Amino acid sequence: MQTTRGLDRLIFFTDAIAAIAITLLILPLAELVPVTPTNVLPGDFLLDHLSELLAFLLSFAVIARLWISHHALFEHVSTYSPALRNLSLLWAFTIVVLPLPTAMVAHWSTDSIVVGFYIGTMFVSSLLLTSMTILTHRSAALQEPANPLPSRAIIASTLSTTEFLLAFILGTVFQEINYWALFALFLSAPVFLILRRHDRQILMRMVPR
Amino acid sequence: MQTTRGLDRLIFFTDAIAAIAITLLILPLAELVPVTPTNVLPGDFLLDHLSELLAFLLSFAVIARLWISHHALFEHVSTYSPALRNLSLLWAFTIVVLPLPTAMVAHWSTDSIVVGFYIGTMFVSSLLLTSMTILTHRSAALQEPANPLPSRAIIASTLSTTEFLLAFILGTVFQEINYWALFALFLSAPVFLILRRHDRQILMRMVPR
Amino acid sequence: MQTTRGLDRLIFFTDAIAAIAITLLILPLAELVPVTPTNVLPGDFLLDHLSELLAFLLSFAVIARLWISHHALFEHVSTYSPALRNLSLLWAFTIVVLPLPTAMVAHWSTDSIVVGFYIGTMFVSSLLLTSMTILTHRSAALQEPANPLPSRAIIASTLSTTEFLLAFILGTVFQEINYWALFALFLSAPVFLILRRHDRQILMRMVPR
Amino acid sequence: MQTTRGLDRLIFFTDAIAAIAITLLILPLAELVPVTPTNVLPGDFLLDHLSELLAFLLSFAVIARLWISHHALFEHVSTYSPALRNLSLLWAFTIVVLPLPTAMVAHWSTDSIVVGFYIGTMFVSSLLLTSMTILTHRSAALQEPANPLPSRAIIASTLSTTEFLLAFILGTVFQEINYWALFALFLSAPVFLILRRHDRQILMRMVPR
Repeated sequence: MQTTRGLDRLIFFTDAIAAIAITLLILPLAELVPVTPTNVLPGDFLLDHLSELLAFLLSFAVIARLWISHHALFEHVSTYSPALRNLSLLWAFTIVVLPLPTAMVAHWSTDSIVVGFYIGTMFVSSLLLTSMTILTHRSAALQEPANPLPSRAIIASTLSTTEFLLAFILGTVFQEINYWALFALFLSAPVFLILRRHDRQILMRMVPR
Repeated sequence: MQTTRGLDRLIFFTDAIAAIAITLLILPLAELVPVTPTNVLPGDFLLDHLSELLAFLLSFAVIARLWISHHALFEHVSTYSPALRNLSLLWAFTIVVLPLPTAMVAHWSTDSIVVGFYIGTMFVSSLLLTSMTILTHRSAALQEPANPLPSRAIIASTLSTTEFLLAFILGTVFQEINYWALFALFLSAPVFLILRRHDRQILMRMVPR
Repeated sequence: MQTTRGLDRLIFFTDAIAAIAITLLILPLAELVPVTPTNVLPGDFLLDHLSELLAFLLSFAVIARLWISHHALFEHVSTYSPALRNLSLLWAFTIVVLPLPTAMVAHWSTDSIVVGFYIGTMFVSSLLLTSMTILTHRSAALQEPANPLPSRAIIASTLSTTEFLLAFILGTVFQEINYWALFALFLSAPVFLILRRHDRQILMRMVPR
Repeated sequence: MQTTRGLDRLIFFTDAIAAIAITLLILPLAELVPVTPTNVLPGDFLLDHLSELLAFLLSFAVIARLWISHHALFEHVSTYSPALRNLSLLWAFTIVVLPLPTAMVAHWSTDSIVVGFYIGTMFVSSLLLTSMTILTHRSAALQEPANPLPSRAIIASTLSTTEFLLAFILGTVFQEINYWALFALFLSAPVFLILRRHDRQILMRMVPR
């Protein structure tokens, strides 16, 4: 029997892991400070570690975005199954891993293996969210009866995962683009938003609720 | 549809981030210990790292103060909107960043760029709290019907943000003041408290509930 | 008097500790990056630290598995006793310790003391879960009346603890096996699952609910 | 107006801080591993860092004990006041500080300043718990009506704080005792338990509920 506390714990455990991973991102930067000679100007310190700053900003934004998706999905979830629990723990795993490629991308920024590891981890994370969305949508038992998961949630999640896949391909194939592919992704978000709104209206008519 | 669990998760995620960031502040100090030669007297060790100790104390007090404000605001919040969620995540971002300028201010204490980065982060954090306060006040839907957000909360939050702005200006313009501007701020708190009480009474008559 | 909040806090405290310990596992790897010369190829970096990667993967999987067991047990718990609280805190202790043998196993992989410390910590952690399971099963007061702990939970937990004991013996006696004993354990999980299902049916008839 | 969510957040924030601080205690030990030459035997590594291991064990046990006291007190609390909130945050501050004297006591074990800092922090932490106990006991509004705080809770908390004061005096005055004073404290716990039970019966008759 699955209790409400059981679901709360699962969500809480996942959230705590995401909160820790997102907070740890600043540590590598903070730890560089005491080993920097004091005669280096602090402005130069920040400029010298611009790639670390960018990687921190990017990873924070991506984890926040992935967390928002997880949060939005579980608004419709009323209980859990072993499969949903395992997928949620695997999702947490991708978030725990992220500080490693974040550190690597700051260190070897344009290398395609590193960029692939970095964006690839995000892609797998997003793919797991899409899997959980489909799993939930297929099972009436998992959903909050008063607040069922709409079909458009699958479309939105699939689009999001496709965006990460696109960024993965762009970032690994074109070395000059590297992890800037993610910035492009975030910048294009408003464009996607408009496109998606339009797509949705079309898709809404096609897809049964 | 926004559920109570959804709001709880948002608050929890923010709180977990703040709890981690406030606890990580001691790490740079704790990590200095094993690399200190054992023939250095521990009393001298503490004196040698007085600026790190002060920065730790200050950042702890500031994060605690900002958290208290976040906590006080959300006592009146009964649900969330995407805007409130995004502002709360941005607020969490300012808290995650803080260990970096904390380490920098301990390392290059009187430099105005560093002081500006340090107090500036706090100012933005406070500004985001004021934005959330205004956003909540403007929307009846976001508020707990039995416990609406009083107008004076906006005044209190704005005053607090103004104090950080003042500390920012004082600390960056006058290099001798630097981050002591924050101490002045905390010492003046009781004075402000009395002033504010008086101001409130006047303002209360002017501002409609 | 034990309140629901008291139980929630106990569970939450344990979960938060497990979430932090599981997230910290990536730190030793992430911290190796900035001290690696940039002319080392990132692919070589990952290969050079394969033992750290494997230890990270293993420890993540084991903590996740132990947490799932803790989670499953407390689905049936409705209140706590001082004994259950202390056992749960001791369990949290074994999880907090784990990053140390994880780092050691990555550093001195085939040493039997290290392998013993590593798998031994896991064995004690599992043993504490079995103790909590027996303690809960023996006390009707601790259990959720609508959702009592079935006898098979003791059998499942004991089997799990026996598996860790087996891995401990295999890993410490045969130096060539070392921590691969755990991989064998995870790989054999599906086999055990089938065996257990069969065992359960036999045991179910023997053991009174 | 104080809500239940407000109290839950306060407790949660405090718990999260305690959970992080207790988990971080292993980091200094785990971080020693990668910088140890691999030709050092792992058994020798553990023996060489026996003082760090002992300090880790002690600090874990003390934080767990202080958390149990905080947990026991808040079983009787139904709401919060600004004073209780501030005391709880100050308590969290003592827990956040603890990793620093823990690292120092492992590094300069017999120095009386360090021992004083270490046990002194614990004493202040315990003193704050006693203050919160008295504050709660004095205010009927703060207590759960169905589960009021008994007078004996003040006696128990005061005894506990006195034990830390005793350990502080013993540990700082007699350099040969140093932080072993805490071990004595924990070993004497069962004796105290019996004494206390007897004391309680006498005190129970004297102190009005």
